[in-house]
Amino acid sequence: MPRTVFAADLGGTKLATALLTTKGKFLARKTETVDKSSTMAPVEQICRMAREVSGRTKIHAAGVAVPGLVRRNRTVWAPNLPGWERVPLENLLRKRLQATVQVESDRNAAVLGETWQGAARGKSDVVVLVVGTGIGAGILSGGEVLRGAHELSGCAGWMVVSEANGDEVRRHGSLEAFACGPALVRAAVSSIEAGLGGKLASLPTKELTAEAIARLAREHDPLARQIFQRMGKLLGLAVANLISLFDPEVVIVSGGMIAAADLFFETLTETALARCQPLAAQQVQIKLSRLGNGANLLGAARLALTAGRRGQSSTINRHS
Amino acid sequence: MPRTVFAADLGGTKLATALLTTKGKFLARKTETVDKSSTMAPVEQICRMAREVSGRTKIHAAGVAVPGLVRRNRTVWAPNLPGWERVPLENLLRKRLQATVQVESDRNAAVLGETWQGAARGKSDVVVLVVGTGIGAGILSGGEVLRGAHELSGCAGWMVVSEANGDEVRRHGSLEAFACGPALVRAAVSSIEAGLGGKLASLPTKELTAEAIARLAREHDPLARQIFQRMGKLLGLAVANLISLFDPEVVIVSGGMIAAADLFFETLTETALARCQPLAAQQVQIKLSRLGNGANLLGAARLALTAGRRGQSSTINRHS
Repeated sequence: MPRTVFAADLGGTKLATALLTTKGKFLARKTETVDKSSTMAPVEQICRMAREVSGRTKIHAAGVAVPGLVRRNRTVWAPNLPGWERVPLENLLRKRLQATVQVESDRNAAVLGETWQGAARGKSDVVVLVVGTGIGAGILSGGEVLRGAHELSGCAGWMVVSEANGDEVRRHGSLEAFACGPALVRAAVSSIEAGLGGKLASLPTKELTAEAIARLAREHDPLARQIFQRMGKLLGLAVANLISLFDPEVVIVSGGMIAAADLFFETLTETALARCQPLAAQQVQIKLSRLGNGANLLGAARLALTAGRRGQSSTINRHS
Repeated sequence: MPRTVFAADLGGTKLATALLTTKGKFLARKTETVDKSSTMAPVEQICRMAREVSGRTKIHAAGVAVPGLVRRNRTVWAPNLPGWERVPLENLLRKRLQATVQVESDRNAAVLGETWQGAARGKSDVVVLVVGTGIGAGILSGGEVLRGAHELSGCAGWMVVSEANGDEVRRHGSLEAFACGPALVRAAVSSIEAGLGGKLASLPTKELTAEAIARLAREHDPLARQIFQRMGKLLGLAVANLISLFDPEVVIVSGGMIAAADLFFETLTETALARCQPLAAQQVQIKLSRLGNGANLLGAARLALTAGRRGQSSTINRHS
């Protein structure tokens, strides 16, 4: 059995790669902006970075997390990558890397990573709610990744927790319209347009980012704080639903937005525990991810390492 | 292998029992009001009814659906039955019936019944939403019953789909507070108290039942229709969430309230498909149960019949 594994986390914007030991220790790590110049460009980029992070080490096994859907026939649909309708990524990489390759959706990789090395270590009923530019959930139930009939499970960004409706809701889903990074900016713009902007209104439009709103909130700007509180409440209602439906041992909140967790996580937790099924509330833990961007890489690595033992390990998915 | 199986569906109010063939055909069927005179009374009642429906046929296998939680240690918690905190129902019945006995929660029995003989026949990704006095969901994912860490999965009555809050929400859960049978009556009472009752206000209070509201709605009473439309919308949002999270092949709506499906099912379906993840919406079916009360009996029977083959059949649960 090889002592190292190559992992890649292909996002809509960044491509993170790493060489890891079989125990999940990072030996080398490299991140670049995704090359979107053609459909094949990200594939070649993964291969080049694999050579770069592995150096003289021969790659025997590789795992790749992708920002979309991995079909049962192993083709990938990734709406944020040009031309990625049906990319046979696993086959393409297998030939190029001369290694066994596993491809998995990023949210499933996240839950496998958290279960292997993160805040859900050793657990078998786990939900990872990823909140960043978008919102999705990776779900482990009874030790198995929950996939759904068409690999579309865990579309938590579409969860309805409020009757509010509108264009954004129809385009991105109810929760994602109000509770991810871009939603914070939209909420700020609405407030400014309504003449409520205060300090926010003094920011040039192009500087109106989630980070800038967070900075003002930490400076006790009431409107900026309120925008984060609102996000915390809506995410809390979503986590309540995840607890009532999945009865997990632990819910892990991860993704880019947790850089601002100090501004919404307490509200999220209080709301979730107050509104979910009460017996489940007594037993569930709600935690922030400690792995950061590493969760997807670890999950992809874990998949690659356990691929040969499918059917033995309880966290291995059923691919047909 | 025996040719018949005994099944019981123990509810909070009624106890249904049946003798079935191994192919799911009902040979005899009997329903009584549950004897709640003592903790043991329903157990003895099941045994007596087993003798009555089976006649001279020896019972080899029995399956029982219960209105509550079946713990991993096989004890039952059923809040609507007096003293049912930790009733070792499986053991008690095994000794009395001298047969193999399987006990399962009613919502899990419902999804097993629908998958065996109902609108989800042969499917492996199925959600059954039971809407009656309360609301719950039985969930099959990848051919396995979804149980959660503490057998508390599928508590759909606690799902938040609206930010409305209040005593009923905290007591029964958000969806159950607004969208089950008793919720219709509460909505009618509120409307009457607000002076909007119309024909509803002319009913004596004790005749203000879900059935009476349905009758008025069918006579085109605007307020009664509106109450059912509201229920259809909230249930539709809940079904949208179930589709976005579980990506099932089919969602089946069942339970006592489907007797009034003509008044809310169209709204439910339209709302669900408009608000769930769009790719999942294109592929899912939303159906009414055709099995009625029989689903739980069939599911219990199925469990009893497949108990000896655990680990072989994909619809068999993991009991530890």
